[in-house]
Amino acid sequence: MARTKRAGRRTGNPDTRAEILAAARRLFAEEGYESISMRRIAAEAGVDPSLIHHYFGSKDDLFLAAIELPMDPAPEVAAVLSQGGVEGAGGRLMHAFVTIWDGPHQDKLLAVVRTSLSKPAMSFVLRQLFEHRIVKTVESVLGDQVDHIPARASFIASQVFGLVVARYILKLEPVASLSADQLGVTVGPTIDRYLTMPIEHLLAEQGK
Amino acid sequence: MARTKRAGRRTGNPDTRAEILAAARRLFAEEGYESISMRRIAAEAGVDPSLIHHYFGSKDDLFLAAIELPMDPAPEVAAVLSQGGVEGAGGRLMHAFVTIWDGPHQDKLLAVVRTSLSKPAMSFVLRQLFEHRIVKTVESVLGDQVDHIPARASFIASQVFGLVVARYILKLEPVASLSADQLGVTVGPTIDRYLTMPIEHLLAEQGK
Repeated sequence: MARTKRAGRRTGNPDTRAEILAAARRLFAEEGYESISMRRIAAEAGVDPSLIHHYFGSKDDLFLAAIELPMDPAPEVAAVLSQGGVEGAGGRLMHAFVTIWDGPHQDKLLAVVRTSLSKPAMSFVLRQLFEHRIVKTVESVLGDQVDHIPARASFIASQVFGLVVARYILKLEPVASLSADQLGVTVGPTIDRYLTMPIEHLLAEQGK
Repeated sequence: MARTKRAGRRTGNPDTRAEILAAARRLFAEEGYESISMRRIAAEAGVDPSLIHHYFGSKDDLFLAAIELPMDPAPEVAAVLSQGGVEGAGGRLMHAFVTIWDGPHQDKLLAVVRTSLSKPAMSFVLRQLFEHRIVKTVESVLGDQVDHIPARASFIASQVFGLVVARYILKLEPVASLSADQLGVTVGPTIDRYLTMPIEHLLAEQGK
């Protein structure tokens, strides 16, 4: 906890903060983001709900802190998609994604991914982050241009998470050392295809 | 060890077998597949080299046992690629890959992937498996039709490992429940593009 403390900021009792985080992590992993209220987390941690607001602000902020994500990806995704709409969105998304991952947060992002992929309860939490922060952001920006965004997002995720694995975990060359520009050009079109391919019939076969 | 013992097969002293596996795992993780000899593993385990041949057969077989992979992926990759060459190879590869993963080995395959992604030393071992079994197999079958196969393979891996993450770990819908046929149609073209996209200029920029 001490390492995240900033000069001049009131962080209060580190034990209380840690207890809230542990309770949040447990409840998010067991029951999911949607169904868990701040009040419920406060009860689980044995603290007054106002303390959660004091330490963490919103439920989104608490969620990001609980999974130890160093930044909220949603505003970045919204900004990138807003500049130009669906045309070339894949390349822009890939470029922004790689630029963030290559930056100062890489170690923390990698720690979140490693934990999320190795522990089933945390995989569920990463899925919630994806569905409730990323997919909803994409829908809010591209919803009038692209149909079936949650379904398309699962394909996009299959490429984006795989890029993390190939570039940052397995370090396969040349994917590991190409620039953000080069990955925008090579991997971006994959995302564009997932944003535009016919998908209705697949979902119909699934009865969805 | 007892669970892998087959009726009528001489498995010898389980401690010796486990010691050989532990030594192999350690050496593969530290120094890589290529540079480690069977003799070296025998010395590390404190056993006679003939015992390794007795328990495991070839170095490839020992490697697969060390990483606890329930099957050798190379013959399957070779068979799929041989049926029809590069044309439509992505769809065939994806279909075969999903069929294997959906089969009885899923739990063991998932265990290998989870371990490989969460522990850096095991990530290195998974990279060796990929480079020395999969990439070399692809080169042996498609080498006269496709250039720069190791480089293209790193892009293909970024999609294939990502599919594992999205379908089997995060369970994102509909990727998690589509059939092998449907994933062949939707994800296969991504692999086809990585097999055929211009790549020379990227490698030239890298000085490779």
